[in-house]
Amino acid sequence: MEGVDYLGHERNKAQFDVNAMKIVWAGSRHAFEVSDRIAKLVADDPVFSKDNRVTLGRKELIKNTLRKAAHAWKKLGELRLTEEEAIMMRYFVDEPAYTDLHWGMFIPSIKGQGTEEQQKKWLPLAYKMQIIGCYAQTELGHGSNVQGLETTATFDPQTDEFVIHSPTLTSSKWWPGGLGKVSTHAVVYARLITMGQDYGVHGFLVQLRSLEDHTPLPGITVGDIGMKFGNGAYNTMDNGVLVFDHVRIPRDQMLMKVSQVTKKGEYIQSDVPRQLVYGTMVYVRQTIVSGASSFLSRAVCIATRYSAVRRQFGSKDGGEETQVIDYKTQQSRLFPLIASAYAFRFVGEWLKWLYTDVTQRLQASDFSTLPEAHACTAGLKSLTTTATADGIEECRKLCGGHGYLCSSGLPELLAVYVPNCTYEGDNIVLLLQVARFLMKTVSQLNSGKKPVGTTTAYLGRIEQQLTFRSDVQKAEDWLKPGAILRVFEARSARMAVACATNLKKFSNQEEGFSELSIDLIEASIAHCQVIIVSKFIEKLEGEIPGYGVKQQLEVLCFIYALSLLHKHQGDFLATKSINPDQAHLANEMLRSLYTKVRPNAVSLVDSFNHTDHLLDSVLGRYDGNVYPKLYEKAWQDPFNDSVIPDGYHDYIRPLLKQQLHIARL
Amino acid sequence: MEGVDYLGHERNKAQFDVNAMKIVWAGSRHAFEVSDRIAKLVADDPVFSKDNRVTLGRKELIKNTLRKAAHAWKKLGELRLTEEEAIMMRYFVDEPAYTDLHWGMFIPSIKGQGTEEQQKKWLPLAYKMQIIGCYAQTELGHGSNVQGLETTATFDPQTDEFVIHSPTLTSSKWWPGGLGKVSTHAVVYARLITMGQDYGVHGFLVQLRSLEDHTPLPGITVGDIGMKFGNGAYNTMDNGVLVFDHVRIPRDQMLMKVSQVTKKGEYIQSDVPRQLVYGTMVYVRQTIVSGASSFLSRAVCIATRYSAVRRQFGSKDGGEETQVIDYKTQQSRLFPLIASAYAFRFVGEWLKWLYTDVTQRLQASDFSTLPEAHACTAGLKSLTTTATADGIEECRKLCGGHGYLCSSGLPELLAVYVPNCTYEGDNIVLLLQVARFLMKTVSQLNSGKKPVGTTTAYLGRIEQQLTFRSDVQKAEDWLKPGAILRVFEARSARMAVACATNLKKFSNQEEGFSELSIDLIEASIAHCQVIIVSKFIEKLEGEIPGYGVKQQLEVLCFIYALSLLHKHQGDFLATKSINPDQAHLANEMLRSLYTKVRPNAVSLVDSFNHTDHLLDSVLGRYDGNVYPKLYEKAWQDPFNDSVIPDGYHDYIRPLLKQQLHIARL
Repeated sequence: MEGVDYLGHERNKAQFDVNAMKIVWAGSRHAFEVSDRIAKLVADDPVFSKDNRVTLGRKELIKNTLRKAAHAWKKLGELRLTEEEAIMMRYFVDEPAYTDLHWGMFIPSIKGQGTEEQQKKWLPLAYKMQIIGCYAQTELGHGSNVQGLETTATFDPQTDEFVIHSPTLTSSKWWPGGLGKVSTHAVVYARLITMGQDYGVHGFLVQLRSLEDHTPLPGITVGDIGMKFGNGAYNTMDNGVLVFDHVRIPRDQMLMKVSQVTKKGEYIQSDVPRQLVYGTMVYVRQTIVSGASSFLSRAVCIATRYSAVRRQFGSKDGGEETQVIDYKTQQSRLFPLIASAYAFRFVGEWLKWLYTDVTQRLQASDFSTLPEAHACTAGLKSLTTTATADGIEECRKLCGGHGYLCSSGLPELLAVYVPNCTYEGDNIVLLLQVARFLMKTVSQLNSGKKPVGTTTAYLGRIEQQLTFRSDVQKAEDWLKPGAILRVFEARSARMAVACATNLKKFSNQEEGFSELSIDLIEASIAHCQVIIVSKFIEKLEGEIPGYGVKQQLEVLCFIYALSLLHKHQGDFLATKSINPDQAHLANEMLRSLYTKVRPNAVSLVDSFNHTDHLLDSVLGRYDGNVYPKLYEKAWQDPFNDSVIPDGYHDYIRPLLKQQLHIARL
Repeated sequence: MEGVDYLGHERNKAQFDVNAMKIVWAGSRHAFEVSDRIAKLVADDPVFSKDNRVTLGRKELIKNTLRKAAHAWKKLGELRLTEEEAIMMRYFVDEPAYTDLHWGMFIPSIKGQGTEEQQKKWLPLAYKMQIIGCYAQTELGHGSNVQGLETTATFDPQTDEFVIHSPTLTSSKWWPGGLGKVSTHAVVYARLITMGQDYGVHGFLVQLRSLEDHTPLPGITVGDIGMKFGNGAYNTMDNGVLVFDHVRIPRDQMLMKVSQVTKKGEYIQSDVPRQLVYGTMVYVRQTIVSGASSFLSRAVCIATRYSAVRRQFGSKDGGEETQVIDYKTQQSRLFPLIASAYAFRFVGEWLKWLYTDVTQRLQASDFSTLPEAHACTAGLKSLTTTATADGIEECRKLCGGHGYLCSSGLPELLAVYVPNCTYEGDNIVLLLQVARFLMKTVSQLNSGKKPVGTTTAYLGRIEQQLTFRSDVQKAEDWLKPGAILRVFEARSARMAVACATNLKKFSNQEEGFSELSIDLIEASIAHCQVIIVSKFIEKLEGEIPGYGVKQQLEVLCFIYALSLLHKHQGDFLATKSINPDQAHLANEMLRSLYTKVRPNAVSLVDSFNHTDHLLDSVLGRYDGNVYPKLYEKAWQDPFNDSVIPDGYHDYIRPLLKQQLHIARL
């Protein structure tokens, strides 16, 4: 039945003010109002429907994406949306498209690496979308290691031009989104060669396609790299391949903010500090952390609602079966993921603050906090995206068989999310960067140098960390934020110090780093967990209005921390940060907390304020009317247009009639 | 270049006889020869090409699957293949199809549950494929809990017929493979109602479609349930929905081996033991465990070969970059998965023996080992499929960005594999069944009753397990199979005993079981790991011919066990089965073993003898010629047929020309 709330009984159980929690989740009343308004605007617009996304062929799929992008652009203008609203709109349209790269990478590159003159020339064109740009960095044979790129940009002083060239097959640009079929321009990264010398990788602005008829310009071979994971997912994006055959561009299309090539071909470094580039990286990774909380929250919203709808086993005397969400095994997998979504939200908020802080310092030429900020964002990007990718798949499994249907929304959510673990820094490579920072911090402790920044302050109290003994004696002792934080800090500090001690045994530090890389990664993870747990605790130390809101968040904070403690129990015990009895008590407390979440579970995921349009999941429908809609959805599939499948006459009937020898095969 | 082996230098490093290892992997020389021959037969036949699988629309995709199935059937006849060869052929065609259900579920159900008369009537038709059958059990609202099914089969003595009916929406049959578009018949599970009484769920043979024109018979509504995870994957299967509106079938189409309904409507139990049904379950789950090793081996083969081809970072003085497989972080994720594939292979082999043993006992009315066999297969099905699904995704990530391309083969492999975690028993539900068996075994120890079967023998020595202290003092001590097995046994026994002790505190055992379910699952996992580790060790105690083969397997066995020990370090430490120093030594030993695998890695995955056709992966090509073929493959994508994408004139040009207002939107 339409209009009935099948989850109403769950919502009535909530012990907190859901509207107040929505504001906490959004970050502020303003942020809530904007996102709520734009979400509904998108949801109500039939052009943005996602209905046939998984059944369209690739060409139709992309055509539909182009339609949505053009429609969104038109809407933005008509409604005079602000930049904040425009970003929200792209998020809620929820379909990877060339516009992500145009606005998210092409324009920021020109802003960050172009001179004022270059910005004046190119930005207005880009802002009006008179040109569409992408970001052509990775190559067929070169991903993470930017310094290994092979494309060349050789300066020719005779014509005052750069010659962009792909010298090998592996130097073909490969992966850039928006490149395959749409972009007219690209920021291309290539090795700058002038006066016979290779100056390493620099950015160049290159036109790819005619603005008149969209055909590739001479010397340019460009196409799509083919199907990717999932049905819709990232297949709405034209990730591309690009080969240059001695393509000439004017000298002034090298992005020259940081370094220049003169007319004569001399290479000059400007006095603009190179560290500014890291500011952008901090920004992009911070948005990825916020994105992790959004995507994880979508998956847990679907899994939580469906777990409340679905019943299985346990019927007594022929009555109704038990709601799946009442099973401890379901709770122990689901509730830590609800807690993780909140934890990532708050650490993302803090990263936003950190980015602003770093930017202000950079502008004042204060680079002191940059290494810490870089390590934080790198590590948190790695941790939150890995946990989110795994969490989405766990939510899919938590929905049983139906989670395997595209109509559950979960296969697409996973497929569209997983690239986050690879792009903007492979998650393992990033953890090794964190490890370098950690090792440096630890090595400087002996010289009495205190760590810079709040996230490493605990390492400054290193004696205390190494001698610490947890005083937890009963399960309730784990309900003190300080008790939790101290064991996380002790474990992390001890793992870092152990690595540093082992590193010293190597005469060649690089060799040592490589040999110990597995331990170093584990130490980095422990350190990043300290950050997430401490930022969650800090959040709770502030004022949080709304009936019962703070209490719910406290429970989630403990669940987040104690479930990590259980998962990494081996580390905590091996470093003697806790003893086996304390581990047991922590686990006991964790499980008793699930009972507190249970009546609030559906309302805790309602607080994300996701529209049915965004979730695009029959299992996660707000009204819980799952089964009739699953049934309806199946019949809408174009494959059900005919009862007799294509191929019946050629491949089934001859089989049944034992006439296969005369069939067309 | 064609014909060049880019991995030749890796293959030259092998310290063992690859051909001998191939025979160990296959299980016997005979098994190797059959599988090798059939694999090549399929690979060389253009009808079985997988080239366009991910770009076809659903209707074309299924049509192509029907074509392959008919072609395979024709080949089977022409080549007079044996049943063993026919099963191999279906495996190597590697595309889910209605035939899986016809041969794997429909026919076995008739054999297992039909009377001799019924078998005589129906089996010849099914063997010749004059009828095509599926297995209609799960319903829209009922998956794991078979007893909760709602479909009814009400006996009408007036006409000597059963009336099959779907009383509710949630009783619609939902998921059965082959049902949506192909099957003419189904074994339908429904509640048997006669003389006003409900006798629970029984199987019925129901014709669904006309054998003349394939239209659904009166009262039957049938269709496809829509798109599933992945591009090709299980979308080649017509998983279906089926609704009965008072469909009548003759009384003799109830499968009556175990129970009958007489003409008058009386319900009679035959004297055939119901336990026979469990024999089939043991069989099916055993094949799933063997399947896990096959699928995991495909993923690790791709990831290992590509890790040897791919280079990233670490170039010294402008030389070549480092092979990714040389990084410790890569080794620590990849090599335990190679080891797991072998471990699952051997435990699967043992399960095959167990099935034969159980079957022989059942025929002699000896039911004593059935509970153990049931627990083993349930638990191992759960552990190996979970590890394989996670392992495939890990291998995908180990391939970096390119693992996200369908041409890597990995997205499809994951999507087609994950249902194994849900079907034939949800993995969590199965572990709870193992836990019940474990708790029963432990509770009987006090009464002096020794456990039946080899896998629980260690629990019989319970005093020893509880007082055990590992005598490992240096890293090398971990290279004794006995030392490893003893700590696995002690940890498992202690976890089981702790659960049993806690269970006793509950007056209501069912409530206790539910409250402790999370601990119980962890105990079940620990127990199943004992089985896998011990069977690997047993395998090594037998004779294994071939230069260096046994040595390689020993290293893999240690890696498998020690990587589990590291992963579950928390359990081992919390149960005091080892101390922190021993944990550290185990980890140290584990890492040093990676160095031993490194030169053999490519050859260890060559030993799986996978054809390029089966892998269907550009990254996993035998010859390692990855980049040219990735490039070639991209250009073959139909999306690259035209340079200008559909939608350019409507949605891109108007944007660039600032004429969006007049565009069609």
